[in-house]
Amino acid sequence: VEILSGIFEGRTTGAPLCGIIRNTNTRSKDYHPELPRPGHADLAAYIKYNGFADYRGGGHFSGRITGPLTFAGALCKQILEEKGIKISAKIIRLAGIEGDGLTPEMEAAVLDAKEQLDSVGGVISCEITGLPAGLGSPFFGSAESRLSAMMFSVPAVKGIEFGAGFSIADMRGSKANDPIAIEDGKFYTKSNNNGGINGGITNGMPLTFRVAIKPTPSIAQKQETVNLATMENETLEIHGRHDPCIVPRAVPVIEAAAAICILDMTLD
Amino acid sequence: VEILSGIFEGRTTGAPLCGIIRNTNTRSKDYHPELPRPGHADLAAYIKYNGFADYRGGGHFSGRITGPLTFAGALCKQILEEKGIKISAKIIRLAGIEGDGLTPEMEAAVLDAKEQLDSVGGVISCEITGLPAGLGSPFFGSAESRLSAMMFSVPAVKGIEFGAGFSIADMRGSKANDPIAIEDGKFYTKSNNNGGINGGITNGMPLTFRVAIKPTPSIAQKQETVNLATMENETLEIHGRHDPCIVPRAVPVIEAAAAICILDMTLD
Amino acid sequence: VEILSGIFEGRTTGAPLCGIIRNTNTRSKDYHPELPRPGHADLAAYIKYNGFADYRGGGHFSGRITGPLTFAGALCKQILEEKGIKISAKIIRLAGIEGDGLTPEMEAAVLDAKEQLDSVGGVISCEITGLPAGLGSPFFGSAESRLSAMMFSVPAVKGIEFGAGFSIADMRGSKANDPIAIEDGKFYTKSNNNGGINGGITNGMPLTFRVAIKPTPSIAQKQETVNLATMENETLEIHGRHDPCIVPRAVPVIEAAAAICILDMTLD
Amino acid sequence: VEILSGIFEGRTTGAPLCGIIRNTNTRSKDYHPELPRPGHADLAAYIKYNGFADYRGGGHFSGRITGPLTFAGALCKQILEEKGIKISAKIIRLAGIEGDGLTPEMEAAVLDAKEQLDSVGGVISCEITGLPAGLGSPFFGSAESRLSAMMFSVPAVKGIEFGAGFSIADMRGSKANDPIAIEDGKFYTKSNNNGGINGGITNGMPLTFRVAIKPTPSIAQKQETVNLATMENETLEIHGRHDPCIVPRAVPVIEAAAAICILDMTLD
Repeated sequence: VEILSGIFEGRTTGAPLCGIIRNTNTRSKDYHPELPRPGHADLAAYIKYNGFADYRGGGHFSGRITGPLTFAGALCKQILEEKGIKISAKIIRLAGIEGDGLTPEMEAAVLDAKEQLDSVGGVISCEITGLPAGLGSPFFGSAESRLSAMMFSVPAVKGIEFGAGFSIADMRGSKANDPIAIEDGKFYTKSNNNGGINGGITNGMPLTFRVAIKPTPSIAQKQETVNLATMENETLEIHGRHDPCIVPRAVPVIEAAAAICILDMTLD
Repeated sequence: VEILSGIFEGRTTGAPLCGIIRNTNTRSKDYHPELPRPGHADLAAYIKYNGFADYRGGGHFSGRITGPLTFAGALCKQILEEKGIKISAKIIRLAGIEGDGLTPEMEAAVLDAKEQLDSVGGVISCEITGLPAGLGSPFFGSAESRLSAMMFSVPAVKGIEFGAGFSIADMRGSKANDPIAIEDGKFYTKSNNNGGINGGITNGMPLTFRVAIKPTPSIAQKQETVNLATMENETLEIHGRHDPCIVPRAVPVIEAAAAICILDMTLD
Repeated sequence: VEILSGIFEGRTTGAPLCGIIRNTNTRSKDYHPELPRPGHADLAAYIKYNGFADYRGGGHFSGRITGPLTFAGALCKQILEEKGIKISAKIIRLAGIEGDGLTPEMEAAVLDAKEQLDSVGGVISCEITGLPAGLGSPFFGSAESRLSAMMFSVPAVKGIEFGAGFSIADMRGSKANDPIAIEDGKFYTKSNNNGGINGGITNGMPLTFRVAIKPTPSIAQKQETVNLATMENETLEIHGRHDPCIVPRAVPVIEAAAAICILDMTLD
Repeated sequence: VEILSGIFEGRTTGAPLCGIIRNTNTRSKDYHPELPRPGHADLAAYIKYNGFADYRGGGHFSGRITGPLTFAGALCKQILEEKGIKISAKIIRLAGIEGDGLTPEMEAAVLDAKEQLDSVGGVISCEITGLPAGLGSPFFGSAESRLSAMMFSVPAVKGIEFGAGFSIADMRGSKANDPIAIEDGKFYTKSNNNGGINGGITNGMPLTFRVAIKPTPSIAQKQETVNLATMENETLEIHGRHDPCIVPRAVPVIEAAAAICILDMTLD
């Protein structure tokens, strides 16, 4: 990152902090602008921008754009850590295999997919500790609203759940409600099915959420698509360099995106 | 709803449309301000607002606030329908039972929970058809970001997933990628695992999502909580009128919230 | 004002504070929707809202809308006063007559205009004391940007100047620059040509500005306009009840609008 | 300007357009961080940013920041011109001398001020033609609110007036009201005292405003200030390169700032 403004003599100045990361590692010839890649934004962008979208590497839809996110997030994490707020994410599921972090079984599944010119996805969980109670606002500014909006800004995220999430829908209230207690003058809840948020407001318990990451859409297998020049059905083989699994690389991105959002919330 | 402004001679005038719904059906004596109810925002609000929050009925955290949402949504739906955009939500899971709408088994499960002074939750799916391709923006204004932010404004929602959602994380790319095709000059995809959204932009396919609704937190069983006056642990029995399952009533709220959000997106 | 929400037991609750003022004193028959009044928004609103604007009393362009502004401002002033921030506005010019407040000569000029079925305007100055240095942001969030945007929300305001304003443009730098000094550890400037703002940031000196209020556009004299039904030129005589000078009534509105804006700025 | 993103093959792509202008012409040794310059933001920024502001050249308060504004404005002007909207600004007063553009008398006054190590200010008028009626919103989004907020983002602007501005305050209503007329099916007003705006909404007439530009605060004369290190009164002599009059250079900046704002308004 080349810092252009906002830092002077090792400290932020109050001016907007601007940094740039030049994308020097490009192989534009790998792209076929007339053949939108399935699972990518190519077709949607082609329509949205009337054919003028920059198709090289997915343009501003590219996963490369998570670089600036992690830069911003790294700064936010520093500030949050000074306030005692910690954010940590990890893989809890990959290629359908449950586990605590990237396990050997998961790695084998990735290699297996790669061999078959295919890709796999996974689920990342994130925990934020040290948050004060009272962040967020009811309704349109709820903690869940703000965090989910930020998480769906990360490419490939297709789902988010807080606390027990979708499984809380199967619980009864007597189980889902987190019993409230006090010890040494400090409130806590005996379970955390609500993921540290009630009514859109943080309650002082760890804020927990999970996000679903879809498998890398760029795969080397032959795929069905259309030719935008001829307007006919066609098949496409992608020859670029592609990662069969972006989930491990998404972990710091999720942390960074959470840090940006949480810092904003603490500044309200 | 009493309309205060914005409508004249049966038409909107361009002035802000303001309506009020008076909450005439209150029984404030049912509330114990010193005993925050588990699963509710009482404790978080007590801390956030330094003890001055209006505890009656949950104040502005109350599910009653979905009334104005459905009013606004009803107007938005009218405008969207004129553009050929339809929004329809339905229950697909309740008390752990799968089904297409409110089935007799689900109803029995609700009554069973009620008898046991308990409550149940569920999952609502929503489909939006007739959307043009190209709505939404990459990153912070993605279609998923905006819809999820709106959905988490609806009380009791704890999770959202688009298209195949969390299950797409278990798929391989060759299955998750929706094959693109053209017929009679119109693009479509042969599957819809991405829920009508790629790269945060609508692609012209039906936009689909599901939300998890937690069980009603107000239950008549004895629950553990704290006494904010004595700062000691205590038990609480809630005697108000409470619905053992809000999922059926959440269906039109989800539609309304989606309509507000989608109309906003079409106006960008 | 009927308070609908946000106050409970004499205190704000943190919920949105909503109040309504019903406009019971209407004489809609005084309005001719097909004859837009010169100096009013009638024609612009007719075009903007495709003929559906509520023409009665000027709709939401009416000066009556300053009622809610003063209600909101009154609350903001209370909070600001607790912080030692005082806002006071006064008339300094009316009907072309300079003076400190509403002088007998000004009153005579108003009566004279009224007799001639005419109206007069004036200039209001406003001073805000007790402001901390450091409010506002360079460029798009400058103190002048925010205050001016708010002031031009007050109907009939057509100009604003800070500090010496337009007359600073005729000064030389050696006169315009306010000499900086320190006394008892406190910074101040020996003059205040910059009106308490440098580079968009408050500097701790009194923030001063003046606004130009145009003469009441509603006058009983015959005026030239068009007939929107026949699309021909026509004359109009307005018979409603109209104040020949709104400047005295604008004084508390300017204070209220400033209070709302300044409170917002202190919350950044 | 080095374009970093948003343009591909000579056209905008829909991605954010980012350009940078490197400030290569710096002479930081000309600055004395401990001696805030009168008329500049130095002291206000020192307080706002707790002493960490970048003092070199005024940091992000520098007039150099108008470079990016004119870049953005140049693009906006192109788009507006395709819609038939033209923006043109000119000097109408400089060093207290009235005139239509930069006259020889004005130039002499600038040279005279320069010889005396002093500076002068002036007034710029701006006219926007070809605007449709109906832009802007009543109250907080009024055309005057938005334009004034933008203009006060331009350093050195201390006042703005629309149409007849401060002089309308001295008129009677019968003179201030612009008579409405129609010719060949097109509405117009016979005068334009309201500067093309009624009730915050454009009325289709030329939008006119004037801004007051204060004299360059950087002058070589000895000035009174404080020493932030010793916290004592002190005098300051500025030795940098400074323009005795920035008004001619502000003309394109005013046009650019207006273009950005007007384009935004047409996109509502």
